[in-house]
Amino acid sequence: MIPSLIIALVYGDGDAPAFLCTIIPFLVIGLLLSRIKQSEKRMSSRDGYFIVAAAWIVVSIIGALPLYIAGGFDSYIGALFEIVSGFTTTGASVLTEPAELGHGVLFWRSFTHWVGGMGVLVFVLMVMPMENDNSMHLVRAEVPGPTAGKLVPRMRTTSMILYGIYAVMTVVLILLLLLGRMPLFDSFCIAFGTAGTGGFATTAAGIGGYNSAYLEIVIGIFMLMFGINFNLYHLILLGKVKDVLKTEEVKVYLGIVAVSVLAISLNIMGQAQSFTRALRDAFFQVSSIITTTGFATVDYNFWPEFSKHMLVLLMVFGACAGSTGGGMKISRVIILVKSLFAEIKQIITPKAVVTVRLDGKAVNKQTLNSTRVYAAAYLILVCVFTLVLSLDGLDLTTNFTAVLACFNNIGPGLGLVGPAANFSVYSDWAQLWLSIAMLTGRLEIFPMFLLFAKSAHE
Amino acid sequence: MIPSLIIALVYGDGDAPAFLCTIIPFLVIGLLLSRIKQSEKRMSSRDGYFIVAAAWIVVSIIGALPLYIAGGFDSYIGALFEIVSGFTTTGASVLTEPAELGHGVLFWRSFTHWVGGMGVLVFVLMVMPMENDNSMHLVRAEVPGPTAGKLVPRMRTTSMILYGIYAVMTVVLILLLLLGRMPLFDSFCIAFGTAGTGGFATTAAGIGGYNSAYLEIVIGIFMLMFGINFNLYHLILLGKVKDVLKTEEVKVYLGIVAVSVLAISLNIMGQAQSFTRALRDAFFQVSSIITTTGFATVDYNFWPEFSKHMLVLLMVFGACAGSTGGGMKISRVIILVKSLFAEIKQIITPKAVVTVRLDGKAVNKQTLNSTRVYAAAYLILVCVFTLVLSLDGLDLTTNFTAVLACFNNIGPGLGLVGPAANFSVYSDWAQLWLSIAMLTGRLEIFPMFLLFAKSAHE
Repeated sequence: MIPSLIIALVYGDGDAPAFLCTIIPFLVIGLLLSRIKQSEKRMSSRDGYFIVAAAWIVVSIIGALPLYIAGGFDSYIGALFEIVSGFTTTGASVLTEPAELGHGVLFWRSFTHWVGGMGVLVFVLMVMPMENDNSMHLVRAEVPGPTAGKLVPRMRTTSMILYGIYAVMTVVLILLLLLGRMPLFDSFCIAFGTAGTGGFATTAAGIGGYNSAYLEIVIGIFMLMFGINFNLYHLILLGKVKDVLKTEEVKVYLGIVAVSVLAISLNIMGQAQSFTRALRDAFFQVSSIITTTGFATVDYNFWPEFSKHMLVLLMVFGACAGSTGGGMKISRVIILVKSLFAEIKQIITPKAVVTVRLDGKAVNKQTLNSTRVYAAAYLILVCVFTLVLSLDGLDLTTNFTAVLACFNNIGPGLGLVGPAANFSVYSDWAQLWLSIAMLTGRLEIFPMFLLFAKSAHE
Repeated sequence: MIPSLIIALVYGDGDAPAFLCTIIPFLVIGLLLSRIKQSEKRMSSRDGYFIVAAAWIVVSIIGALPLYIAGGFDSYIGALFEIVSGFTTTGASVLTEPAELGHGVLFWRSFTHWVGGMGVLVFVLMVMPMENDNSMHLVRAEVPGPTAGKLVPRMRTTSMILYGIYAVMTVVLILLLLLGRMPLFDSFCIAFGTAGTGGFATTAAGIGGYNSAYLEIVIGIFMLMFGINFNLYHLILLGKVKDVLKTEEVKVYLGIVAVSVLAISLNIMGQAQSFTRALRDAFFQVSSIITTTGFATVDYNFWPEFSKHMLVLLMVFGACAGSTGGGMKISRVIILVKSLFAEIKQIITPKAVVTVRLDGKAVNKQTLNSTRVYAAAYLILVCVFTLVLSLDGLDLTTNFTAVLACFNNIGPGLGLVGPAANFSVYSDWAQLWLSIAMLTGRLEIFPMFLLFAKSAHE
């Protein structure tokens, strides 16, 4: 929070005390806790999941304090929703006009996107030395996607490489935004939102407010780039460009983007002034939704039904595994579709041994299994979350897309939670529920489940 | 169609020629085809799937002819939609007022529910002798649920036992309906709709039109009974009542019904005149939706959102495996939820061998696997069907629930396809698409897939 405090002091909007009130007591508690001698016990993968889930909740509860203290939120739950939305890179907001907040708070809100995108604990791992095996368990629980790999033998170095790439790309984006005449403060906030595929903007008008084709295209391209597996950038740095081009997930990902942009452009052409305008709007929105960023330049609530349905489908897909994006992840979708065809093939030729392949390599049973269970859990949870939300009395389209938007960490949905609206239509109670949905979605279900299973067990 | 022809002649509504025009040519073709010598080749399970899918399509195309010839439908596609809806026991209609049709056609429409409920080919198997192994493949492809068992060693005897139970229960229902002063003709049609968990009524007012608590309760209870695995009735006949009570699926099924009825009753109490009225409405609607029958006594479009969401959830669940109902089937839901918990347990205790159990027995890998793939296929297909349907320009709630209603063979959805409305809001093209959804849902995805895979392969 220190950078946010500095920003608050520089702009002098009066939100500096809010940060001081939070930083000082927790700094003291932190220092006291660090004196406790670390136990020598090795961590199991179960502990990894547990620690990650607990850490995210604690960080959210503390992170919400400055927002609440600085004012602008009706309740602490609203502030909590906002900060969970920040850390999980959802970008859903309960604010009607974010510009009313102080600069320090706005900066903090966007900064949580940047930290949350790569992972709160991966960030901690980078600065804190830890046994290699232990850190591996944490990373596996936090990094999105069906499998998490190490780039180099030492986990800490891996974290540093990933964060390095992440930081450089963010800096390049900030420079490009400044070139497009975006104000300095906005450039930082929007770049954080893009990098973490979060989606908080500094005003209610969002990216559309700048009314610049250049900015839209730059942000659109960068959103797509942050939605690609970061390991691939590492491969590019090592000169293995061929391997990257062969990656199935990236091919499918870019293919889906291309097809969706084209289909939506044709569909909304009647509404847009020209085909180029339709193409520009479609590209930005598709890129924003599939990477689960949630920026918007138009209110797609007014688009034809086909385009709206298409966006809902993209919400479910999500970005690539190992990126900062949310959703089911393209690689999971590929595995699911392939195992469907494998099952059919198995029926046709009962004696053959049918394997599911990704990038030419057979997907192992364990991954296959957890992907299928993941899909089932996804289906069940979306149903349950939507059902509970319905107690608030809003319509199915709103509730269903609100759950999808939160669970997949996108931000805006359709209906009453569309891009031009915000989540303040929901009661405190529903906002708390949606915060749980965001955390469950960001940590990919199992850590959150374990947390509840463990506390129920004890 | 012979019984329908007789009914048509008795009532003399002028729809007899429509049946004659269909019966005579196909009787000739059938006789010619039967002269072709049957090949001795043994059937594979793949052939079983293929034959079932093809047979359902052919039967539907022929079955739609009398409806189209007799008039009352705008197009042949409309008639096809109606009869596919009949055979798949969906009960979705494109008619604004079914009572305008002749009695013969109405009878035929409801009779397709009765035949389709248990299975068109199981019906054929009963009358036609066939090698035991071959018929087993057909039954496995046609009978709903994750596994299909034989009651007795000979498949033909099994079919006869099942159809016997089915027929006796239907007759009992007809008698009970007559006791409730329902007209004779209606009693037959409504009993067919209830037994097959179809949902076609003889008037647009449906069951609500009789305005009789007795009839609603009788039909409500019988819908639930036809939603239970028929093997269990066989067990009861054999005196093994204890085994039936131990069956997990039935317990969960009745548990879900009880909880849903109670929750919805409390939720709609404000709208209903009294709690007993709320209970009566909730019981009938829950029983109708979970068994995927689709009868309605109230327009639940006007219910509070929570109750509507609850119904959508029940639509997905569906009835028990091995019953005439559609949907995912309760046993699949149980297996999915249990394998989710097994996965979590596996994370907590990585070294333990975690098995998923149903009725105390471990579920074998193959069933577990196909259940998960089934859930994934279900998820993907619902998305695809909804997306394509959106080209017709209706809203998400309507499209999404229309797909769920057709795919799960329920009948009415929410929004523009609610219980008081009908599917004529969709274009011919969308109706054809929904017909495919109904067939795919009824045959549980794989046979239809195979049919397309095979034709694409050749």
